[in-house]
Amino acid sequence: MRIAVLGTGVVGRTIATKLVQLGHDVTVGSRSQLNPAADAWKFPGGRSAAFDTFAGAAAAGDLIFNCTNGAATLTALDMAGPRNFDGKVLVDVANPLDFSTGSLRLIYCNGDSLGERIQAALPDTKVVKALNTVTAPVMVDAGRVPGDHVLPICGNDEEAKQAVRDLVACFGWDQRRIVDLGDITAARAQEAHLFMWLALADALDTYEFNFGLAVRSK
Amino acid sequence: MRIAVLGTGVVGRTIATKLVQLGHDVTVGSRSQLNPAADAWKFPGGRSAAFDTFAGAAAAGDLIFNCTNGAATLTALDMAGPRNFDGKVLVDVANPLDFSTGSLRLIYCNGDSLGERIQAALPDTKVVKALNTVTAPVMVDAGRVPGDHVLPICGNDEEAKQAVRDLVACFGWDQRRIVDLGDITAARAQEAHLFMWLALADALDTYEFNFGLAVRSK
Repeated sequence: MRIAVLGTGVVGRTIATKLVQLGHDVTVGSRSQLNPAADAWKFPGGRSAAFDTFAGAAAAGDLIFNCTNGAATLTALDMAGPRNFDGKVLVDVANPLDFSTGSLRLIYCNGDSLGERIQAALPDTKVVKALNTVTAPVMVDAGRVPGDHVLPICGNDEEAKQAVRDLVACFGWDQRRIVDLGDITAARAQEAHLFMWLALADALDTYEFNFGLAVRSK
Repeated sequence: MRIAVLGTGVVGRTIATKLVQLGHDVTVGSRSQLNPAADAWKFPGGRSAAFDTFAGAAAAGDLIFNCTNGAATLTALDMAGPRNFDGKVLVDVANPLDFSTGSLRLIYCNGDSLGERIQAALPDTKVVKALNTVTAPVMVDAGRVPGDHVLPICGNDEEAKQAVRDLVACFGWDQRRIVDLGDITAARAQEAHLFMWLALADALDTYEFNFGLAVRSK
């Protein structure tokens, strides 16, 4: 599949590397096509991704991962050219984190979310919020964490959610691990999970964890 | 133990009933001592709680559960008389929920929490946030939900947290299930969990669930 990965931070590099390993035709987009971080990036096995601007990458992908910094996502998507997303699936992995006060805040929160902002900015795009609730190495390899932990996803388009389910199955997230939280307003829950996620990471002294579900039988 | 339960909603009734069953000397506090809801309340086994005003109950308890509506908690604690809490452990079970817009919002959120507001209002009280992350029947009976699900707690005072651990052990929350998230600022995480909790409740079509932890070994 022709896949664009927007963002060259840890999340973008981790996802792009995995997609290349899986044999996809990957274009990585960043603010500038001449990106020293991207140039220094070593892909395993001799294969590589193409590198382009946000706009070039978005145009090249049939499915697009948003791995930009959540604080800069809306600007990055605007730079990428909204038309380049029309009719496509956008997997929003970003969290709108703000540590400027010394503790975690979310830029959009409490009745708002980045996922919804993206969907509003790109009304002809099928936005699916996914993978934002785990650390990057676990995103692309669910088996790094033992047990029946789960991946919440949400979005307005059922076919788009199915496409994302199929794709993340190759990251180890088989269908029974995926919890569909409904439409894109559930991005509020997935992003607000960062408060609990970070508190648990501190308590557990690791980022390599996830939550599972225990449910009473009816 | 002499325990006060402030609030006569589902959470207060559930916790007070369980504490009476466990043999504690329970005083339930409400806005008015003449409370039709409380009068109609049937305790199992012929034992009962005493009923009093918020102030009378707080004065009678050595340990106090805040089970008031989170939107009204600070007013209720003021009515109860801050002096009645001095030196005591206050277990804050409340969530500052606001459904006035039709979807969930939190009155204190994103760098703030009810738990912190209570601690600030009652500086000589040892506030422990606990049990707010599960539905009432599960609060007092962890075994209603199968599996190794967990209970986050937080607070500034280690002895107070240990007292709460000991008490909730009698609700089925044995020590390995309890995750200490640190000081009372982690109430931000425990309260913001309500966004994910409610989304999961919708997806699972039940309130009788909880989350467990899956952690990669180091």
